[in-house]
Parts: sequence; structure tokens; C-alpha cells
Amino acid sequence: MTLPPRFDPAFRDDLAALLSWRRDVRRFRPEPVAEDVVAELLAAAQLAPSVGNSQPWRFVRVRSAALREALTRHVDGEVARAGEAMPGPERRAAYAALKLHGLDHAPEVIAVFCDDATEIGGGLGAATMPQTREWSVVMAIHTLWLTARAKGLGLGWVSIAAPETVTALLDVPPAWNFIALLCLGEPEEPHLVPELQRLGWQARLDGSTHVSER
Amino acid sequence: MTLPPRFDPAFRDDLAALLSWRRDVRRFRPEPVAEDVVAELLAAAQLAPSVGNSQPWRFVRVRSAALREALTRHVDGEVARAGEAMPGPERRAAYAALKLHGLDHAPEVIAVFCDDATEIGGGLGAATMPQTREWSVVMAIHTLWLTARAKGLGLGWVSIAAPETVTALLDVPPAWNFIALLCLGEPEEPHLVPELQRLGWQARLDGSTHVSER
Repeated sequence: MTLPPRFDPAFRDDLAALLSWRRDVRRFRPEPVAEDVVAELLAAAQLAPSVGNSQPWRFVRVRSAALREALTRHVDGEVARAGEAMPGPERRAAYAALKLHGLDHAPEVIAVFCDDATEIGGGLGAATMPQTREWSVVMAIHTLWLTARAKGLGLGWVSIAAPETVTALLDVPPAWNFIALLCLGEPEEPHLVPELQRLGWQARLDGSTHVSER
Repeated sequence: MTLPPRFDPAFRDDLAALLSWRRDVRRFRPEPVAEDVVAELLAAAQLAPSVGNSQPWRFVRVRSAALREALTRHVDGEVARAGEAMPGPERRAAYAALKLHGLDHAPEVIAVFCDDATEIGGGLGAATMPQTREWSVVMAIHTLWLTARAKGLGLGWVSIAAPETVTALLDVPPAWNFIALLCLGEPEEPHLVPELQRLGWQARLDGSTHVSER
């Protein structure tokens, strides 16, 4: 029988540091991520919770240079489009100063989908809220993210993309919902403060304002 | 200047154990969760990533016994309804043997919402995929979950509920989307294998089948 682990205060402190220093990374060093590390991260991701144990996550490693270029071009277009929609010259200038993804140079790019047609798990827990399948995939990504950071790697989640375009470019089954493009690699610099805060876009709020009672 | 943490192999092993032993918990011991622990968990949750740093998570602690009872009654009704829709007598019998939530006896119940009307973050990153706001809240819940487990506490995510009923019962602003009811407390027993697997509902799959390349 495997004994359950006991987590000590030193581990909890390190876990708190991991959460605090996680960051969304958009600037990567060029060193490739070793194949066994990629495999380890993708395996760890699948320890995430999933509704009814449906495990609906589908990971697609983008290995073709042409595909990566097409994805980058698409995202750059959507980034520009979202910029034009920003209200007022001040927000527009702040937006233009942001770097929003590292798709063009991250050592590894992984597209993540949710298989909404999966029969695994028998639909348990998803009757009233089918979005819980997508949410399971989100927790798999978050698990990968934390595991990567614990190995000194950075991850960036790119969401400024049109799902139908990514789905068409990557030619995945029609029931696969697009969730994220992930950039992975060694970060140029570690940071405690989010890039959006450092660049003056949006600071972290006092969390207590988001808690109430009934 | 704060130096970035260096995570060592012992920490990574413990993190892997944390992910492996996380579990969705439905059976709790009666001891209350200390107030400072609840506060610490809710603060840790808000270290999660959020789209455009929008921090759209809203936590509502359910303190009223009457409200908890109404929520439990509602969820029990939805659990029964989902059971009737299960295909065939075998799946129905397996479903009937499952315990799907600990709302009636968990020491702490927290409802979680996503404020879809928030202006924090200026809409950055959510233009093409507004669901990324909800997904940020999901990662906050996952962060709370892991932090709780590192303290020996268990969490259960209840999703068999009608969002409009929970929203009405808890009387939250109309723009708050319901994400989850969380049960929190000391688990009756730690487990390495998911309850749904132990009870024969759905086993964990070989994760490599969920990875492909393009």
C-alpha cells in the first residue's frame, strides 16, 4: 500500500513561491525544451481534475514551421484588431507597448483542445453545466504551467485567436473546441510582478474585496 | 530586490505527489476549517493567472444554514434527475452507488462566480474568447484546491446544479456567472486513486493517447 504524502511547511512555502512567481511568459530564450521534459509535462497535465473523470484534454504539438508561422500571422492580426477597438488614445498607446505572445520564437508551441464529443466519463457531472468539460482542460493547462515553472520553464497562454481559424489550420476533429495556444521555454527573466502590471496595464487588486458572505 | 526562487528536485517530487493525491473529496470529517486558513486559501487562489489581469473571481462563503440546506436540496434534485437520464440499468445502478457531493456536512461551503461585467483589465485578451474570463476563475479554484491539499485539506467541486437557481438563492449581481460550489474540510481518508475509478465508474486513461503532432 502506498502511504499518503505529508506536506511540510517548507513545501508549502515553496508552493506559495511557485504560485507567486508563476507569470505568463512572452519572452523566451532560444534553448529547446528536451523531449523527455515535454513528455513529463504533458503527463503531469493529465493529473488534473476532470468532470466525471472524462479527461477531455487533447494536446497538439505544433512542430511544422509553416504551421507555426500561419498561427503567428493569425494571432498578430487579431492582436492588431483588438488594439483598434481599445477605447481612447491612452489605452491604445498602452496596448501598443505590450508584448502579448512569444509564438514566433518560443522553443515549443502546443495547441490545446477540449473533446466535447468524448464518451469517457459517461457525461457525469456535465448535465447541467457542459462547460465543466472545457474547465477540466483549463485545469490541465494550469497543472502543466505550474509543473513547468517548478522546472525553471515559463509558459505563455495565447488567447487572442479565432477558435475556428486555429481549428482549421491544425485540422483537428470538428468536436474539438479550441482552448489555448501555449508557448513554452526558458523565460528571458524571472519576475514576481505580472508583465501587465510592470507595463502599467493592470495592477493586482486587494483580493479581500472579492470575498463576501451569505 | 527579491531573488527568484530556485525549486529543487525534492520540491518537484512533492509537487508531483500533490498533483497525484489531490482528489475530488465528497466525504469530510466534521472539524471546522480555521478562519485564518480560509483567508489564506482565498488569498492564494487569487495568485492564479487571469486574462488581462482581470481577476474576475468572486467568492461567496455560504454561512447561513438555511442557504446551505436549500443548495443541498437543489443539488440532490439535479443529481437524481441526471441519474434518470443515464442510459441503461447498468450505468444507472453504478450511478446510484456514487456519492457526488458533501454539501450537507462539509465544514465550509464556498460558491464561486465570474464577474463578466468587470472592467478590470480593459478586456485585454478576451476579445475573441470571452470564456477566458471564466477560465481564469477555474484556475483560481484549482489554485485554492492545491493549496488546500498541501495543508491536508480536501476540496470537492460540485457542478451538478442549475446556475440560475444557485445565482437566485445566493442573490448575487446578475452579471456574475456561476462557476462552482466548493466543499472544503478534512477528508475522511486520503486516496491516490480517484473515487470514480475506485467505484468502477471511469478509470484514468493512458495519457499518451491524448497527444498528437502537426
